Amino acid sequence: MSKIPVGILGATGMVGQQYISLLNDHPWFRVSYAAASPRSAGKKYEEAVAGRWHLAKTYAPHAGQVIVEDANDVKRAVSAHKKNKCAFVFSALEMGKEETRALEEEYAAAGIPVISNASAHRWTNDVPVLIAEINPHHADIIPTQQEARGWTKGFIAVKPNCSIQSYMTPIHALVQAGFLIKKTIVTTMQAVSGAGYPGVPSLDMIDNIVPYIGGEEEKSEKEPLKIFGTIINGVIQNAVMPKISAHCNRVPVSDGHTACISLAFGMKKPSINEIREIWTSFKGLPQEEKFPMAPDQPIVYLEEDNRPQPRKDRDTGKAMAVVIGRLRPCNVFDIRFTSLSHNTVRGAAGGGILNAELLKYKGYIS
Amino acid sequence: MSKIPVGILGATGMVGQQYISLLNDHPWFRVSYAAASPRSAGKKYEEAVAGRWHLAKTYAPHAGQVIVEDANDVKRAVSAHKKNKCAFVFSALEMGKEETRALEEEYAAAGIPVISNASAHRWTNDVPVLIAEINPHHADIIPTQQEARGWTKGFIAVKPNCSIQSYMTPIHALVQAGFLIKKTIVTTMQAVSGAGYPGVPSLDMIDNIVPYIGGEEEKSEKEPLKIFGTIINGVIQNAVMPKISAHCNRVPVSDGHTACISLAFGMKKPSINEIREIWTSFKGLPQEEKFPMAPDQPIVYLEEDNRPQPRKDRDTGKAMAVVIGRLRPCNVFDIRFTSLSHNTVRGAAGGGILNAELLKYKGYIS
Amino acid sequence: MSKIPVGILGATGMVGQQYISLLNDHPWFRVSYAAASPRSAGKKYEEAVAGRWHLAKTYAPHAGQVIVEDANDVKRAVSAHKKNKCAFVFSALEMGKEETRALEEEYAAAGIPVISNASAHRWTNDVPVLIAEINPHHADIIPTQQEARGWTKGFIAVKPNCSIQSYMTPIHALVQAGFLIKKTIVTTMQAVSGAGYPGVPSLDMIDNIVPYIGGEEEKSEKEPLKIFGTIINGVIQNAVMPKISAHCNRVPVSDGHTACISLAFGMKKPSINEIREIWTSFKGLPQEEKFPMAPDQPIVYLEEDNRPQPRKDRDTGKAMAVVIGRLRPCNVFDIRFTSLSHNTVRGAAGGGILNAELLKYKGYIS
Amino acid sequence: MSKIPVGILGATGMVGQQYISLLNDHPWFRVSYAAASPRSAGKKYEEAVAGRWHLAKTYAPHAGQVIVEDANDVKRAVSAHKKNKCAFVFSALEMGKEETRALEEEYAAAGIPVISNASAHRWTNDVPVLIAEINPHHADIIPTQQEARGWTKGFIAVKPNCSIQSYMTPIHALVQAGFLIKKTIVTTMQAVSGAGYPGVPSLDMIDNIVPYIGGEEEKSEKEPLKIFGTIINGVIQNAVMPKISAHCNRVPVSDGHTACISLAFGMKKPSINEIREIWTSFKGLPQEEKFPMAPDQPIVYLEEDNRPQPRKDRDTGKAMAVVIGRLRPCNVFDIRFTSLSHNTVRGAAGGGILNAELLKYKGYIS
Repeated sequence: MSKIPVGILGATGMVGQQYISLLNDHPWFRVSYAAASPRSAGKKYEEAVAGRWHLAKTYAPHAGQVIVEDANDVKRAVSAHKKNKCAFVFSALEMGKEETRALEEEYAAAGIPVISNASAHRWTNDVPVLIAEINPHHADIIPTQQEARGWTKGFIAVKPNCSIQSYMTPIHALVQAGFLIKKTIVTTMQAVSGAGYPGVPSLDMIDNIVPYIGGEEEKSEKEPLKIFGTIINGVIQNAVMPKISAHCNRVPVSDGHTACISLAFGMKKPSINEIREIWTSFKGLPQEEKFPMAPDQPIVYLEEDNRPQPRKDRDTGKAMAVVIGRLRPCNVFDIRFTSLSHNTVRGAAGGGILNAELLKYKGYIS
Repeated sequence: MSKIPVGILGATGMVGQQYISLLNDHPWFRVSYAAASPRSAGKKYEEAVAGRWHLAKTYAPHAGQVIVEDANDVKRAVSAHKKNKCAFVFSALEMGKEETRALEEEYAAAGIPVISNASAHRWTNDVPVLIAEINPHHADIIPTQQEARGWTKGFIAVKPNCSIQSYMTPIHALVQAGFLIKKTIVTTMQAVSGAGYPGVPSLDMIDNIVPYIGGEEEKSEKEPLKIFGTIINGVIQNAVMPKISAHCNRVPVSDGHTACISLAFGMKKPSINEIREIWTSFKGLPQEEKFPMAPDQPIVYLEEDNRPQPRKDRDTGKAMAVVIGRLRPCNVFDIRFTSLSHNTVRGAAGGGILNAELLKYKGYIS
Repeated sequence: MSKIPVGILGATGMVGQQYISLLNDHPWFRVSYAAASPRSAGKKYEEAVAGRWHLAKTYAPHAGQVIVEDANDVKRAVSAHKKNKCAFVFSALEMGKEETRALEEEYAAAGIPVISNASAHRWTNDVPVLIAEINPHHADIIPTQQEARGWTKGFIAVKPNCSIQSYMTPIHALVQAGFLIKKTIVTTMQAVSGAGYPGVPSLDMIDNIVPYIGGEEEKSEKEPLKIFGTIINGVIQNAVMPKISAHCNRVPVSDGHTACISLAFGMKKPSINEIREIWTSFKGLPQEEKFPMAPDQPIVYLEEDNRPQPRKDRDTGKAMAVVIGRLRPCNVFDIRFTSLSHNTVRGAAGGGILNAELLKYKGYIS
Repeated sequence: MSKIPVGILGATGMVGQQYISLLNDHPWFRVSYAAASPRSAGKKYEEAVAGRWHLAKTYAPHAGQVIVEDANDVKRAVSAHKKNKCAFVFSALEMGKEETRALEEEYAAAGIPVISNASAHRWTNDVPVLIAEINPHHADIIPTQQEARGWTKGFIAVKPNCSIQSYMTPIHALVQAGFLIKKTIVTTMQAVSGAGYPGVPSLDMIDNIVPYIGGEEEKSEKEPLKIFGTIINGVIQNAVMPKISAHCNRVPVSDGHTACISLAFGMKKPSINEIREIWTSFKGLPQEEKFPMAPDQPIVYLEEDNRPQPRKDRDTGKAMAVVIGRLRPCNVFDIRFTSLSHNTVRGAAGGGILNAELLKYKGYIS
């Protein structure tokens, strides 16, 4: 099988770089198109990122040779699409919300599927917010989305905020096992890479933490309800549970968001051992179908008291696993635990690639 | 008034150093006696701490000249006591729990009041766990304690764990204003100085957090109930509320414990504005009587979204204030907020000194 | 004596904030005028810095009430000057070099002395680069400068780059004691506050150092030669020694630049003990005349092997002292040592204030 | 070819863990024997390191099952050796210098080759201090060593201190190309993993650096002279050049030692371009013979101004390359540059494994 040629919008930014490097050896996809701000347009990718490559892992030689285009110039992408050089795009755009929304729609209208990391379309009610292990069936709203908008081949699918990725899968696993979750109070300690580059000033992160991330708590409380929602009459109706209260903090960690979570179940309450068993045996569609980006185990449980820790555990399962520890009874709710995921892999580019694998599997991209 | 001569047990350790430097210019107390492990005994204090002084602020010249004694040698302290060189001791002992308990009792039995930072006696039911703004009346169990144990002048009074200091005073202020608090879920992000020196290895604190501090969550959940308790029949009966669930984390911050707190009130619920008003107008006995170590305002509220922050706010009110921000409704309970206090000043040596001021005010030491 | 009213240009930036807070209780000067970018103009100072105050120490209430003006609007300053509200200005401007140069000249031409932190005029050959302990006599070029430019009361005096402050005074003390220094190789480990705010991204300072600071090595090698220079024919002629080679690095420290220095003397070489004696007994004009901002001891020597350290030693002598340790023979040159100074106090605002005190003492401002 | 069974002494420590994980998939060697302190003896390796595994990368399942022996019990190792379970040992012992020296000799005398990371034998004049790219011929002192001591199969070979690895190979490459280096002044910024675990307290590494590492500067100045030395009359005679002066600092970095280096050549001086060419084309025996642990390029040169950086560059070439940047003329000597290597891989376990590969290649182990 020859690889599907893919494009990256916002290719020179933090998440764009992560996409490029994660796709280095991807068995299904190959980076053939890259677009960024007008400032980078016309340069080779390797020139565009010289002196501002932020990752330890580098990019593949062929990616370095791709000419960066202006992301606002959709015609370029359409032309590449026609030449079979850009079957779909990953959107890691870093512009304003309204511009992003409009631009992503322009790509989709022009026939190019958009798999996005941006928050612009998370609340568009016919756009699925996908975590491939949790709600792969939401992808099936795509034909409705296309029909409603008069799009033929293009569509938009997005992924949720990075901050919720460290506890959504374990919550889903419990719900799927039949245990209703009514309330959740969660405190996150989030890595600075979540704010992009330059992002958080170092003066705020030396001997310090910042107890605030603009908009993050609202996203953390609302997005899960859409992911757990139901497709009714061509739109996604949000779930009403769990009620979530989030405290989001920025801490001096490069990568890896950690969350401390207390949960209250409904009437039916699993034991600590049942929960551990549910988590460690959980598999989603990406595991069953062995998607390339999927971790073998989407949830990894560590027995040591002092884990998970970002530096040691964020790369577990190709940095795509959720790593949990410290499961114990809660003095106020039913249980509590600590949970970690890699925010720029699972929570950003890696999650986007897994969504693309899901959409290819389902036939929406090819 | 000539100053009261005081002794420090564990004078060369982290908290001991903090005691020494905080007492540099104290108007009531003067460091006249210092004791530590046998290894330091016989040295001048300045020699004993050479190469292992951990604070930015230094010690007073006269303190540097004090000869360090062996803390196990209670007779030395008694002899100093008789020569009017050690009216009482601050205990910052770092030995095991059982040894600490026994040794503190030995000092008390020998007639030397012990004002302790150690956890050894926090659960002894006739020993008060004092936060001077909250339960100064618990000091009045001292005569009962002395009588029960046949002690004449000596006694033991302790302070609680540093981790709870950042939210106990605001909770108390609300309770005192008539608002019952039923449930609290709190996540702490605690500074490394709380573990003493050498304490937390730097390999665990570079690009990392550790989601566990041994014993800390238990203390955080139980000690408040004693502080809010009632003296009945010569012992302190614990309160039953609030129910607290604590998640305690270690973060790469030198000083200053931050807590994210969600609270559920009883039937009567204050508004956000009422709460702010209750907090900013709150005064305790230390403020009314203008104790030297007392902050003018025990609770300081900051309006900026991104505060409190450890590096900027921990020194507020001589590092003795609790600094709060981000008060807002909780999506699951009633309210939530972020709260900070300096763990080695308010949470350790400064809190101990304030307790000593309270006990002097009440006539238990002189 | 009533205080001299002073203005701060760039008052809302990192160094501007440092000026404001260091002048809180200054016995000679009082902040009466503040100017910044047009964005802040018209606001009270407390409003202009709300949410972006970066220091632990706060500003005086009266400073918070000062209305911020547009720094480009020199007429405003002149008007304040005439109303006796701005005798001179501290320039902490953060605009481009050319604009800064022109704007500072405009203030000076309008009759307002400019005491500057900016690098714009460091290479103007009739502008003195002052370190008050080293070259106070360079201030006496001011009348020549005024005459040459047709300025009556205004003038420009500057301070050198923060990176060289940690070793210039000890080098000067040795030279003054008669020991020629021929060569110096220095490696600095510089704090992030030196880059202002937002400055260095936290992603570059977590588990990392950056071995490069643009322009810093050139400044470090050239500015000392002007400071050690001689006034000849109305301009400052640079010295030719010592030859300096600088390696400048950015490290994850908030405040305090550390330097590792190897020195080669001329024929006459002091012993280690002589050097220590020269340093600890060194006094400059600010010490002799007891200027308010002057540290009692401009050079403090620490005996412990592992000092100086930024967190523990940067605040020595009101954060205005140079703190040295580890003096020992060099295997290649003659001696080597480690040296530290506080970059935003001694190296920026504090150094500027000390220069103003010098200029007042000499009668150039009043 | 079946793999050679190897043992690790000090297997549970920081460097021991690094050995275990680096050998996970080694094509020539397989961990079959592990020894540590008596406290760990008798446990499975996975039990012995539970809760104190410090690396992000884990160990191979078969290594987790190895029973840990008491490292002091040489008979155990001999017995394993006879059963073909321990052909030689890597020594990562963390005991005192004298004990280490004696214990390593005991293993060697018992017929077990010792490839050591410990400093104990670095100054034993018939023990080679090997960097496989630089002085592989020093291995040929082994027969002399064996004969002199009456050892038949056992011997001792060591590697140098981690701090010098980041500049020894580039210096060697220049010397080998015919450019004599007379003087070197080097300042290191060393990672905390170099001090093992628990190692450096976090209180010393938050908002701080420590300008001292006990014994490090002496090692940095002397060990290179042995590595550049000559075998004469059965012992290694030290070289006399280059003269090195080292300033060693500890900085808040987990892994990766950075060095700032100024060099003075002899009469013959290469140009900047020649140097770059010499470095990038340099290959040693490990490259020519393609040893498994050898990096393809032992010296990697980066063009960006702000590189090398520990977090981004330490893993270059399987964390075995030296990464250099900022080559430029020195204002005092001839050239200066910044250089980086991974201290626990290239500077410790990886360097040890590469030495073992060299010794196998030369037939000293099998």
